[in-house]
Amino acid sequence: MVTQANPGWVVPVSVPPPSLNDNTADADRLISGLKSILKMDAVDVDLALLKTLPGQLRTANYQVRCVCFKDRGRWKLVGVKGMTDAGICAAIAMDLGTTRVVLRLMNLETGGCIGECAFDNPQIMIGPDILERIHFAAGSSGLERIQALIIDGVNQAIAGLCKDAEISEDDVFLMAVAGNTAMTHLFLGLPPQHIIREPYIPVVNFPNTVTAKDLGICIQPFGRIFIFPNVGSYFGGDLISGIIYSGLHDREDVAILVDVGTNAEVVLGNRDWLVACAGAAGPALEGGVSKIGMTAKPGVIDRIFIDPSTGEFDLHTIDERPPRGICGSGMIDLMAQLFLAGMVDIQGKLVPEKCGSRLRETDGIRRIVIVGENASATGAELSISQVDIDSLIRSKAAMYTILATITRYVGVTFADLSKFFVAGTFGSFINPRSAITIGMIPDLPETTYRSLGNSSLGGVAMVLISRDALDAAAAVRDRITYLELNVNQEFMNRFSAAKFLPHTDPSLFPSVRRMVL
Amino acid sequence: MVTQANPGWVVPVSVPPPSLNDNTADADRLISGLKSILKMDAVDVDLALLKTLPGQLRTANYQVRCVCFKDRGRWKLVGVKGMTDAGICAAIAMDLGTTRVVLRLMNLETGGCIGECAFDNPQIMIGPDILERIHFAAGSSGLERIQALIIDGVNQAIAGLCKDAEISEDDVFLMAVAGNTAMTHLFLGLPPQHIIREPYIPVVNFPNTVTAKDLGICIQPFGRIFIFPNVGSYFGGDLISGIIYSGLHDREDVAILVDVGTNAEVVLGNRDWLVACAGAAGPALEGGVSKIGMTAKPGVIDRIFIDPSTGEFDLHTIDERPPRGICGSGMIDLMAQLFLAGMVDIQGKLVPEKCGSRLRETDGIRRIVIVGENASATGAELSISQVDIDSLIRSKAAMYTILATITRYVGVTFADLSKFFVAGTFGSFINPRSAITIGMIPDLPETTYRSLGNSSLGGVAMVLISRDALDAAAAVRDRITYLELNVNQEFMNRFSAAKFLPHTDPSLFPSVRRMVL
Repeated sequence: MVTQANPGWVVPVSVPPPSLNDNTADADRLISGLKSILKMDAVDVDLALLKTLPGQLRTANYQVRCVCFKDRGRWKLVGVKGMTDAGICAAIAMDLGTTRVVLRLMNLETGGCIGECAFDNPQIMIGPDILERIHFAAGSSGLERIQALIIDGVNQAIAGLCKDAEISEDDVFLMAVAGNTAMTHLFLGLPPQHIIREPYIPVVNFPNTVTAKDLGICIQPFGRIFIFPNVGSYFGGDLISGIIYSGLHDREDVAILVDVGTNAEVVLGNRDWLVACAGAAGPALEGGVSKIGMTAKPGVIDRIFIDPSTGEFDLHTIDERPPRGICGSGMIDLMAQLFLAGMVDIQGKLVPEKCGSRLRETDGIRRIVIVGENASATGAELSISQVDIDSLIRSKAAMYTILATITRYVGVTFADLSKFFVAGTFGSFINPRSAITIGMIPDLPETTYRSLGNSSLGGVAMVLISRDALDAAAAVRDRITYLELNVNQEFMNRFSAAKFLPHTDPSLFPSVRRMVL
Repeated sequence: MVTQANPGWVVPVSVPPPSLNDNTADADRLISGLKSILKMDAVDVDLALLKTLPGQLRTANYQVRCVCFKDRGRWKLVGVKGMTDAGICAAIAMDLGTTRVVLRLMNLETGGCIGECAFDNPQIMIGPDILERIHFAAGSSGLERIQALIIDGVNQAIAGLCKDAEISEDDVFLMAVAGNTAMTHLFLGLPPQHIIREPYIPVVNFPNTVTAKDLGICIQPFGRIFIFPNVGSYFGGDLISGIIYSGLHDREDVAILVDVGTNAEVVLGNRDWLVACAGAAGPALEGGVSKIGMTAKPGVIDRIFIDPSTGEFDLHTIDERPPRGICGSGMIDLMAQLFLAGMVDIQGKLVPEKCGSRLRETDGIRRIVIVGENASATGAELSISQVDIDSLIRSKAAMYTILATITRYVGVTFADLSKFFVAGTFGSFINPRSAITIGMIPDLPETTYRSLGNSSLGGVAMVLISRDALDAAAAVRDRITYLELNVNQEFMNRFSAAKFLPHTDPSLFPSVRRMVL
């Protein structure tokens, strides 16, 4: 909420109307009023806004609400509305995902959410993953075309949000965006090719705000767009935003924030220090490997319980529709349950005598049937193969190894973690108990785990409400020590040990040992 | 000159190329190098420039010349060129006059002048004076149209300058502009109508720099344009620029700067204080009243000597071409010579017995022939009427009264003035001896007077060469106390007394008294 203690970006300003004794210009008059409120030296005004000031100030008798923003410490006047004018001052928060883009329309004065919408990133038509898109951008006019896809998509979404809320796009004065480094580069139209080539250099870590007009975003043309700064090619603004949302940077005790996905991104720290790293975990955790893996939608299996005594499967699907596939969190549940039921062994291999009639084998590759063809929405058996399971195990081992490496690097143990924040929409569906059971995350009390949902969007919304949050975003970026994961022999040894269920050293997972024994 | 002691805007920067151990982004890498040189917290980079950085930095192996500028204390990166690239970094200085526009193309690195050109302000087709233009701008799409006239004119001039100098417009990174408040408003496309209505309020006193692209100026699109700040509707940036050029603001002793024109603008002060005022002097001083008055060009009479014993006229014309008219400085010379020859009396009335055969009278109005029809380039007599003379006397009296008022206001006498700077192209042609003789300016030793030529253009060029000069422009604007000329009884009394030649109190002009007696 926007409160006096936590002031936002809409500042009421009343200045004396001009007179022969005080012939200060309109802009300088308003700015001098603003400066005394904001306690700042300078407030910039874009030319386009300047043109509208004389009319607006006279109509409102020099009593206005000013929408301001800070561009790396420098104040900008972004919009002006009469003090008693109808109509709100609005803003858009955006989580710019590689796969999914989420927008929230907000009231800048109350901090309230007016509407929300999401759509698939239209750049998927170029390629589902970042590499393909960057290669496309390097081609002739590729960058302009791939940028236009996302800009057009965002503009459609904004138009829809404004229509539903019955406000004008011109009343949207600010936009804040968090995404990974490649996505924000493509959004800004910055050449991204050096991001994926050694030594992996973005064009910019901390871009200035840009005007909506310069970027082609259809809000108030002189509205400002803030892009969350990144720490490097593999640690994007979405993570900074997530840190802000989690409050990790403000805590006295040590906590960890983990974004689970194809790339596992981890931040460890407290108010005094922040260490981050990122590493490939593979797409298995998101359910993106197996034939039946899919993102969460109706009919997708998201929770599984296997009765260890009978081997019966109790499935839950989203919206309780007939099953048609399995999502990442469902896979983690499945893996944990198969292990607890003895259907896979500690190496993750399917155990024929336990799988019974669910076991199939084709070309020497075993698979286990999750849903028979009669119960399936597709009319075909839904099954998981040994290959899928091996892939998931490599992913969970990678995740655990990254967590073990970063904690060891700073000299803390898992037990020192006061909180384990799980970031991201996908992460919020993971059952921590299941993730612990397969040894993907450490064996901490379940109350230590806290799912943040879309933490990136949450942090973006915060900087649109609170000046402190914006300052924190810059400060956090500067404070993070980025740890380049060195895939050396020690890392590989640790990784090999983590490829067991839950681990070669079961003493690391006492709660799992109790269940299995 | 750009020297180490007086650093300019082109900053050589070498930063280490990126490596796996230092993966700072291209922009942030360059900025961090710049910051350590400039000792500044933040340097802004526009999105359009950002897009070109990765290519430019790699081509130049991270050794570049950065063109920077300051926008009200905040640094902006404006352009980048490889350290050893051919091609210069250039800038345009512009004096944006109501009548005449002068441009100078400069080498930013040496401070040298590459070329200069001038053209009549194309807005003259709307109206020769400011009032007509402002009224036109208030009409439907009038502002866009009148702005387009000047922008197009400037673009043509820039194209010509660049062509002559064989450089690309893209190598012009900066432009600085000084003009009166109305002209800069029309240049920026800002609604000017409140400038001429009580209480005479500009849209802005100190605008931010704008990008060339936003203003439609055809130099490097992300180049920056600096507009000299004004003090009010009647004290424009051209005067601030003139102050910078004169060095008035830096002097220990008190000096005065006078811009003689339709509007007389006066600044009095030293390094500790600056007081300014402006008042209508009428167009007579510029030669804009009499039928034969015209601006300086070939064939125009600019100097006159009258032999007091014979009454013979000795004329000098520009380029020594046959006479076709008289310019303002010629009028002042003429008036002084007529007075010294006794052809006008101390009230400025033509004296028939002294004028002899040169006297004519039509409809009861006397006039004196300057050039007979045989000697004139036009085939017609060139003459000055009593009405023209009266108008000139009112103008010179207004000027003297303004000077007397401002000095009295701050409690200094004319004798306290260490220097009397005459600003403006027109002012530079005035013969101080003649101006003293008619009592337009005080009777100070001629060495006290110093003509600055186009002081506005001179000051503009300085801010493009020197960071200190730019800082001074802002500081001078903030330091000026603007004295609203109160046309009260005291002012009118002083004005009436000044309508004599040289004055009702001849003791104020001892050097003139010596000549006349």
